[in-house]
This record gives sequence, C-alpha cells and structure tokens, in this order.
Amino acid sequence: MATQDNPAQSRSGAQLKTPKGTRDWVGQDLLLRDYIFQTITDVLKRHGGIPLDTPVFELRDILSEKYGEDSRLIYNLEDQGGELCSLRYDLTVPFARWLAMHSNVKQIKRYQIAKVYRHDQPAIARGRYREFYQCDFDIAGIYDPMIPDAEILCIISEVFEAFNLDMTIKLNHRRILDGLFTAAGVPEDKIRPVSSSVDKLDKLPWAEVKQEMVETKSIPDDVADRIGKYVMRNGSLREMIDTLRADESLSDQKDIKVGVDDMELLLSYLEAMGVADKVSFDLSLARGLDYYSGLIFEVIPKASTQVGSIAAGGRYDGLVSMYGKQPVPCVGISFGVDRIFTLLAAQRKKSTSELEHETDVFIMTFGSKESGGYILERMKIARELWAAGIRAEFSAKVKPRVQAQFNASSRARLTVILGQEEMENGQVRLRSALESDKDQKDRGELIPREKVVEEVQKQLSALSVTPE
Amino acid sequence: MATQDNPAQSRSGAQLKTPKGTRDWVGQDLLLRDYIFQTITDVLKRHGGIPLDTPVFELRDILSEKYGEDSRLIYNLEDQGGELCSLRYDLTVPFARWLAMHSNVKQIKRYQIAKVYRHDQPAIARGRYREFYQCDFDIAGIYDPMIPDAEILCIISEVFEAFNLDMTIKLNHRRILDGLFTAAGVPEDKIRPVSSSVDKLDKLPWAEVKQEMVETKSIPDDVADRIGKYVMRNGSLREMIDTLRADESLSDQKDIKVGVDDMELLLSYLEAMGVADKVSFDLSLARGLDYYSGLIFEVIPKASTQVGSIAAGGRYDGLVSMYGKQPVPCVGISFGVDRIFTLLAAQRKKSTSELEHETDVFIMTFGSKESGGYILERMKIARELWAAGIRAEFSAKVKPRVQAQFNASSRARLTVILGQEEMENGQVRLRSALESDKDQKDRGELIPREKVVEEVQKQLSALSVTPE
Repeated sequence: MATQDNPAQSRSGAQLKTPKGTRDWVGQDLLLRDYIFQTITDVLKRHGGIPLDTPVFELRDILSEKYGEDSRLIYNLEDQGGELCSLRYDLTVPFARWLAMHSNVKQIKRYQIAKVYRHDQPAIARGRYREFYQCDFDIAGIYDPMIPDAEILCIISEVFEAFNLDMTIKLNHRRILDGLFTAAGVPEDKIRPVSSSVDKLDKLPWAEVKQEMVETKSIPDDVADRIGKYVMRNGSLREMIDTLRADESLSDQKDIKVGVDDMELLLSYLEAMGVADKVSFDLSLARGLDYYSGLIFEVIPKASTQVGSIAAGGRYDGLVSMYGKQPVPCVGISFGVDRIFTLLAAQRKKSTSELEHETDVFIMTFGSKESGGYILERMKIARELWAAGIRAEFSAKVKPRVQAQFNASSRARLTVILGQEEMENGQVRLRSALESDKDQKDRGELIPREKVVEEVQKQLSALSVTPE
Repeated sequence: MATQDNPAQSRSGAQLKTPKGTRDWVGQDLLLRDYIFQTITDVLKRHGGIPLDTPVFELRDILSEKYGEDSRLIYNLEDQGGELCSLRYDLTVPFARWLAMHSNVKQIKRYQIAKVYRHDQPAIARGRYREFYQCDFDIAGIYDPMIPDAEILCIISEVFEAFNLDMTIKLNHRRILDGLFTAAGVPEDKIRPVSSSVDKLDKLPWAEVKQEMVETKSIPDDVADRIGKYVMRNGSLREMIDTLRADESLSDQKDIKVGVDDMELLLSYLEAMGVADKVSFDLSLARGLDYYSGLIFEVIPKASTQVGSIAAGGRYDGLVSMYGKQPVPCVGISFGVDRIFTLLAAQRKKSTSELEHETDVFIMTFGSKESGGYILERMKIARELWAAGIRAEFSAKVKPRVQAQFNASSRARLTVILGQEEMENGQVRLRSALESDKDQKDRGELIPREKVVEEVQKQLSALSVTPE
C-alpha cells in the first residue's frame, strides 16, 4: 500500500528517497484518504462546523511547555535570522493560540484536517510516521451543560454511519474516575499516575496493571484491589448511573455526584438524539492526556480488535487559559484517520497498482493505417465528453497500436471505437468494458457520430444503477 | 479578508501571532479556497489526472542546486540528529524526485495542490506570503508531439470556464524565441539574459527594456532594435505562423522552423478541441525559468489588468534527468490559486464576518417559560434533519432567549419554530429566513410535527430553484 522507497543515488549524489518517517501518497490511496476527509467534513458542516487552517509552523514559544517531556519530539526550524519557529505537533495548540488571538469569538465549532510532525522513532509497519494527519473537531465556548458533549457523540455516530463501520463509543467522566480513586484510598498526588495505569487496561490484563500500581507507583495492595473492583465495571449508561447511585461507599464523593448528574443529563440528550444505544459507560476508560476535565470517550470498531480506537476525545475546560486569556471551555474529538484508512482500505477491491485509475470512456481507433489514426476525431470526441463532465481519455499517439489501446480501455467503463468503415458512414461503435481478450471481437453497438455524448450519458447512468 | 493578527502577549510571554509571512485561514475564505481546489481537481480528474502528495520537507540534497541563487530562500529544519531536511520550495522538484524514484512509471498525468515555503521578504498587501499554495498539473512521459501540450491548453480553458472567468492564453515557443534572438544577432551566451529582459515587457515599456539590454547586457543598439521589431508582434496562431513563415530573414533558422512546425501541429489540435480562439501567439512572452524547452504559456484574465497572470507553464524536457535517470519529457501548468482567490473573492457578496456561515435550518422555540425550552424536542428535530443530510442548528441553551434565536436564525434558509400551543397540537411552524426585525411577527406556516423533514426538504428544493 505504501509507496515503495527506492533509495537509489541520483547523479548529484543525493539519495532518492523521502525523509525518514515520511511517505508519498499517490493515486488510489490518496483518493481514499480524500474520501475519508470529505465524508467527515460533510457531517461537520451539517452541524455548523467552521474550517480553520493554520500555518505548518508556529512561533517556538507558542509550542513550548505544552507537551511535557514530549517537547523533545518537536521539529525545530533552523535559525535563519528572525523568529524562531517549530513545526506544529498537534492541532489543539494552534487552535488554542487562534482562540486566544480572537477573544471576540465567544463560541465556535471549528474543524481542522492537517498534517502534524513528531520527531519520534517511526514504526512504519504499525503505521506510525513522523508526518501524519490529524482530524480535529472542537466545540469551544460557554453552552448549557452537556449539550455540546451530546452533539459530539451524535457527530461520531453520523460519521461512522457514513463509513458503514459498526462501532461502540466508550464513555467515562474524569470526575467520576477521580472520585472512585479517592474513594478507593488513592492520595491526591497519585491520582494521575494511577489513572495512566488504568488507561492500559485495554491492552494489559488487570493483574499486570495492578502489579504496576503496587510496584511502580507504591499503591497499597488493598487500595489497588478496590480500584480493580470499580474500574472493571461497564454497561449501558442507565445501568451504570443506577449502580453508582446505589453504591453507598460512594455517596459522600462530591466529584462522583457531579459526574453522575452530568451523565444523567447526557443520557436524556442522547435518547433525544437516538444515539444512546451506541454508547457504553466503561469505568476503565481513563485517556492519557492530563488536561481532560469532564466527559472522555473513545470509539472502538466492532469488526476489528486489532486496530484499537478509531476516534477519541473529551472535555478540556482549562487548556485555552494557558495563553493568559479568559478560560474557554472546550469539548473535542479527534478522528484517527490513519486507522480509518486501514479499515476502509482492507474493504476495497484489491487493485494491481496504486496508480491504476478509472475513467468513464476510452476512445480508440482501429483505423491507424488507412485513416491516419483519427487523432483529430478522437480529440473532438474527448472534448465533447469533457465538456459534458465525463472522464475521457485517448492514446496520445497519432497512430496508436490496437493492443495498447485495448489494454488502456480495460480501465474504462465504456469504449468508443472509431473504425474506417463506420466513420465513412458517420458512425462510431460504443461498447462496455472489455471483460477479457476474446471480447475484442465484440465491436459494440453502432451509433451515429453526433450522438456520442448522449449515448454515453445514457449508458453510464444505466451502468451506475446496475448492481455490480 | 486576512485574519487580523493581534500580537498580544500570552501569560507565558509568547507573542500571540502567526510567524512572519504566514496567516490563518478560517471560515468563508477557506471554503472559497477549497471550492477553487475542488473545481480545478474535478477538471483534472476528468482528464485522467492522478493526485500526488509528498512530505512537506525533503532531504536537503534533493533541493540543492535546483534553484540557483534563490536557494538562499529555502527553509531548513534544525539538525536534531539524523538526516538534514528542508521545507519544499515548490512542487516541481518533489515531483521530479518521485519520478526518478519510480522509473517504472513511463507516463503519468499527476496533480498536486499543496503549500510551499520561501524565506523571502513577505509583501502581505500584494499577497506575497512565506507559506502559500501551489497547484500544479504535469503530463510526464513520451507522447506524440504537441498532443499533451494541446490537452493542457484545453484543461486551462475548461478550468476557467468552470470559474466563469474570461481569459486569454498567451503562447510562445522557446525555440522560436531563441531563433529570433539569433537572427537578430544576439550571441548564444546572451540569449538567456536577453530573454529575461524581454520577459519584463508585460510590466515595462519597450524603451526601458531596450535600455536594460543595451546598458546592462551590452547588446548593440541595432541588435536591440531588431529584437524589438520581432517581439512586439502578436496575433492569432494562424496569423503569426504565416508571418514567421513569410519572413525571409528567418528562413535559415532551424530553431524557428522546428518551433513553427510545432505551432502548426498544435493549431490543428486546438481547432479539433475547439479552443483555438482562446489563445494568442505573443512573441514577447519569455517566462523567467531557464528550464523551459518548448511551448510556453501564460493565462491573463480579461476583466482585471491588475492581477497579472493567473496560470502559467510550459514544456521542460530536461529537468527530471537532473537526478541521473532517463530524461522524462514533461509539460506542466501551475494555477495561481491566490490570484484566482482574489478575483473570485471580489465577486462574492460582502459578508460581515469571515466566520459567518450558512445553515439550512435553525430550530427555535418561543416556549421557554412554560415548557422548559423544548431542548429535547429541538434535539430530536435536529437529529432527524442531520440524518437526512440537512444542515441544522439550534441554540445550545436549555432556555434560550428569543432575540438571540432570531439573530441566529438570520443565517438559516429556513426556521422551524416550536411554540407551546402548536406543540400541544402536534404541530410546529416553518418559515423562510427573516428579512428584517418586523418579520418576527410572521410566525410561518403550520405543519404537522412528524412531517418536518419532508416539508423542509420540499421548501429547500423550492428555494434552490428560485433565482435570488
């Protein structure tokens, strides 16, 4: 699927390859990627999403102190005089910078699909690159509680319906999770470390996660066991809300009460939007990033267990105030476009080459010897088809070989054939795609030359309603 | 139009701005830009164009020695260990690198729309940025003469027809131009310097261009006058071919003979494709870049003389062999997307804000006090509309103010209104966009609640056929 690197030397001595951890995209792969972007964008626009595009590099100061120890993965531009800049590491910080610059914008639903850069050890086989796409949608501003959160979950449902991918949205709430850790006896300064251990439960068994807590993070054995009892629970929103409310050991936890009230309100909204059956409440969901402050979620495809989450996000109400402006509450989702690409690419037909492409009509001629190959006639017909919005191609040779044209016509849905005898009668032949070499004897249906566009349109629309 | 920079300080001390020579794109501007890309892409796909996307940075060696003295404008990445890389300067060199890596690809029509980087002195008012878009289409490989060249001119015609922009394609041929200079008495080593003087004729009067040749480039006065006599000529392809053939002083110039034969062949193809009336043969067109080797062209809008050329290109048969592989003949066009943007932005309606956006339906309620604001009902209706592919919004407040909703509904083509009395009868009101405040009294047409989607679809399609 990936373009093969061929690290040959060029005449000038430069290695002929893309830089480490990057790749070219071409042809069918790129069209599938664009289809993914277009499908997501269509849904976001329906919800009033506004596109944002920021420069590929930012002032270095904007990025610093936002990524903790991952800051070492930031690509810097060389100091060539003037400002110090770095390539963007994600799309969240540029959005926060934009929001801080536009303090007059009180509410916005923005989306951005763009490449980000991490000077990491690439793992091409597992699809980890140094240059890769992110696709973010965030609702920023003050709204009534859980309404934007519910809309984001509705958007997730619409996006994966559009891809025809069955999925489950796992939900949790940071305040509930923190309250559970507190109730289990975790001291406040250990809450985030415990949380990142719990985050590994989708990859590791409980025994190993517990071992990490006890041995690496000095959590007493009985506390770890209580954590285990809580976080292994999951079920429908209704079931889990009732379970948490009924648990007397949690009744004095204010964080849990606030979180459960949020979830109750969210449930009523999800029921109104008809997406309550898409979610499950999973107390083991923790999410790595520190800045989440409320609802968190992760989308898991039902068909494939290997791919991991295909979208994830949550509420982060404190991030924008890092730039010294008013806090702007935000809830956002990031679609894992590379993983969605992997799932959809597995579904599409095996193609012999990423450069293979389709066309609607190939215009060929049998008449090379006597007639001079009808190059002007083939151009005229192509131009008529292009003008009608139809994809059309012909051999760019004055006198093309017949076999080469048959090969090229196999990519086309229809073939227009110019033969000498037919042309002298003001006619051409029109036929559907060649299925095999022996089909070459079938010269298709005779149609008047001046009706080519009309007949092609008729046959193309007939083809597009016929099931394959 | 450009997003206003507001270089305030953030709490961390970082200046809140984008780096010098870069900008954010948001909302309406970005949608117009995407529309430009989509329109061009649609035409290119019709012609069998294959998309290519390359990394934003390349190995530094790939870029070196390709841009002459402009190499100093290349942005370098900091040496953080590993390979030395630089941001791409254009899309031609990455394409040549890709072609050299894929020597099995004998013929390709590729397009690429992407940002490029130049560490130049920006001139924001004149639209010159350090980060800007290029949109390139090239036909690479061996084809019969002038067939791909003619197709490129046909594509130019289709693209600007799609934008409804009237234009002229100025043509010239490097071998004709070189032959004219030789015939005028220019020594071989002065041909490129004289050519770059001639290239300024679209901005400077002949007297100044002549002065530059005589004073700066040591061209004798009588030679300059002969150059002037040749290059001031322009006309239709037919006229100019005949003029050049009839000029006895040029009859022993082999370059001119080859070039004129090319133009004659091109004319026959342009006539077949019906685009001969879009071109003019202009002997003053020289094009700056050294690597052009045959046909060259520039597209000038008829409406605006200030914008300059909106697309340009030519044949360059020697470039790819710089990487030490077989030469791959190429002919290409680069669309000036920023200038096309400027022309189209001037046509669109003045909008009060780049963040303003349209929606199909705004769902509002009058019933805040008695009924609790119908938040669940508004969500249900929104979800039904979204599921039908209709853009819909509602206030994310449980009990929204009426005036705020009226303001928001002015962006919508239709408004669905939920009132208490109507809701109790299983009805809602549906009305078209508010024209003014007094329209608020018009509460629209009563429709059954369960027919909202159907009625909205009916009215939206009625609106889209009504002329504005």
